Amino acid sequence: MKNFIYQNPVKILFGKGQIGRLQNEVPKEARVMLTYGGGSIFKNGVYHQVIEALKGYHIIEFGGIEPNPRFETLMKAVAVARAENIDFLLAVGGGSVIDGTKFIAAAVPFEGDPWDILSKGARIKDAVKLGTVLTLPATGSEMNSNSVVTNERLQRKLAFASPYVYPLFSILDPEVTYSLPKRQVANGLVDSFVHVMEQYMTIPSDAPLNDRLAESILKTLIELAPDALKEIPDYENRANLMWSSTMALNGLIGLGVPNDWATHGIGHELTALHGIDHAVTLAIVLPGLLRVMKEQKRIKLLQYAERVWNLTEGSEEERIEKCIQLTEDFFRSTGILTRLSEHNVGFETIDEIVKRFSLPGARRLGELGNIDADKIKQILVSRV
Amino acid sequence: MKNFIYQNPVKILFGKGQIGRLQNEVPKEARVMLTYGGGSIFKNGVYHQVIEALKGYHIIEFGGIEPNPRFETLMKAVAVARAENIDFLLAVGGGSVIDGTKFIAAAVPFEGDPWDILSKGARIKDAVKLGTVLTLPATGSEMNSNSVVTNERLQRKLAFASPYVYPLFSILDPEVTYSLPKRQVANGLVDSFVHVMEQYMTIPSDAPLNDRLAESILKTLIELAPDALKEIPDYENRANLMWSSTMALNGLIGLGVPNDWATHGIGHELTALHGIDHAVTLAIVLPGLLRVMKEQKRIKLLQYAERVWNLTEGSEEERIEKCIQLTEDFFRSTGILTRLSEHNVGFETIDEIVKRFSLPGARRLGELGNIDADKIKQILVSRV
Repeated sequence: MKNFIYQNPVKILFGKGQIGRLQNEVPKEARVMLTYGGGSIFKNGVYHQVIEALKGYHIIEFGGIEPNPRFETLMKAVAVARAENIDFLLAVGGGSVIDGTKFIAAAVPFEGDPWDILSKGARIKDAVKLGTVLTLPATGSEMNSNSVVTNERLQRKLAFASPYVYPLFSILDPEVTYSLPKRQVANGLVDSFVHVMEQYMTIPSDAPLNDRLAESILKTLIELAPDALKEIPDYENRANLMWSSTMALNGLIGLGVPNDWATHGIGHELTALHGIDHAVTLAIVLPGLLRVMKEQKRIKLLQYAERVWNLTEGSEEERIEKCIQLTEDFFRSTGILTRLSEHNVGFETIDEIVKRFSLPGARRLGELGNIDADKIKQILVSRV
Repeated sequence: MKNFIYQNPVKILFGKGQIGRLQNEVPKEARVMLTYGGGSIFKNGVYHQVIEALKGYHIIEFGGIEPNPRFETLMKAVAVARAENIDFLLAVGGGSVIDGTKFIAAAVPFEGDPWDILSKGARIKDAVKLGTVLTLPATGSEMNSNSVVTNERLQRKLAFASPYVYPLFSILDPEVTYSLPKRQVANGLVDSFVHVMEQYMTIPSDAPLNDRLAESILKTLIELAPDALKEIPDYENRANLMWSSTMALNGLIGLGVPNDWATHGIGHELTALHGIDHAVTLAIVLPGLLRVMKEQKRIKLLQYAERVWNLTEGSEEERIEKCIQLTEDFFRSTGILTRLSEHNVGFETIDEIVKRFSLPGARRLGELGNIDADKIKQILVSRV
């Protein structure tokens, strides 16, 4: 195990009816900006529950935060928040709304151009306090300090992290997920699954507990998926899905072990260039990455094959190929299309992505920083 | 899954050399009381490391906190802390020193008789801030808000919990455990194991992720035990042991599920009356409790038998009996004696314990509150 420092101050309020506790969590005298996305919270009753719980509060609304929240949109919210002296942000939505709200929180008191937070890793010294009401289990943003924002004009999708943007609290009521379309449930399942893989499927690292915690989440997601995707939602199923997806990226399973995150690095480019759903890009990239990097990840792939997919027969090569195939089959079983050609993405896009990773000073990806433009090309070409 | 609220603010600094970071964590202007136990920190160099890291600080020392820390001793520390206007407590030790220091932290600003905190559950409205340097992986106290204190005169061992006594930080350096005697490593293994069982081995609860997280810790402890008990300590082994024992009782695996804690409830009485090591009392009680409560816990026992002990052959009765036997064998493999008669405890003590649980208003134990004096008698008699 490697050294680590961990502190996660987010207060989780989990279960039925927890939205009713909002008034205990949001300071009474706060000037609140309620942020949300495309308006699904009006249809599923969440907006009504939140407004009901916050009766008597000073609230301003800022809706329309897109999936893959756009810098341009968020800067409009920053302007409103500054003009209205907002001192509390309440994000009601999924990972995009929460990520976007974290950026607003950091940008409001930021001196200088907030784009530097994303493009130059400019240091954040303060942020507006925020809380969340999660509506879509997927990104884990409700219990971490990360945020990913897209600059539409520059076609770039960039991340930042700061302890200042940990939510003070997150309300996780599994019932609010009942109205999610199947596509979003599928995205959440795959996103959570790949979050775990990024922190688990690396070189071996002498961390048997972390390995097993990661495998626990993977096995649970596989087990929950069929019922999660059925027409009629079940409370216990949704509750376990919601908690699994939070646990997948609240930092715990990544402590003391190498982290990969190359699938995300490559996937973000596909979203930036083609607007493909984040989770779908992960489902496209991961199988290719596992094959291209299989020597480096061999020990873990064999462990994954045995413990997650119960594969004990056949040669090492066969077990490795089989577990990668089963992973892709799992993604496809949710309805997600895992090939670039199925999304009308061809070699032109691959060339553009490879070009981005070939620029002088371009990041190399992966747990050993050895996934370069050549390997990225191999990975993407194998996924056409 | 049941509703839950969870917030764990403890900052964990894990790994080699982390004691050197103390000065970043303890406020510079603090008046610090350094608390410790019987003095092992002088022999193993931890005291020296701590004092070195806190050069220039105002420090007062309070040593001699016993295993099963005594109310009487802790009240002496409270008097000193009040007289010296102490505003930061640094516990350097195992669970007893940390539990004791939490009580000191709560008692110093408490108006009224601090014994009420333990005996009447008196409400805590404030506490002196504290941090810890953990030397013995076992109780999880370094990352939770619980404390257990013994009143020697009344022969009572009582617990309290308050969010005010969460450590601000805990330093977990696996190397400081190298000098632990085998008996303490064994106690830590068993204590951690039973902490998990208290949160896992209950009526079933539709929480597949929590079940697997609990099983992950159990399997890891079983796997680590043989090397942990060898003469020459290994860093990776001790690191994983330390993290497993923290994860066993930082609250996470108990979220949204029934909790038992009857083994602790009965074990505390054996410690209060006979001074038997806490972990040893758990190793004595648990096998008896599992047998007496096996109908209620049947589904989980069968799951535990299969997933933790790989038992798939034989009748249900056989698998249940076998997994209980393997659990006791595991405890004994650490050198711990698991029978009351091996500790010269006989029927007189059993009668006294049963009497305590027969008093009007006595607590009933277990996840359904149905472990009464009769069942406690059955459990203890089966463990002679």
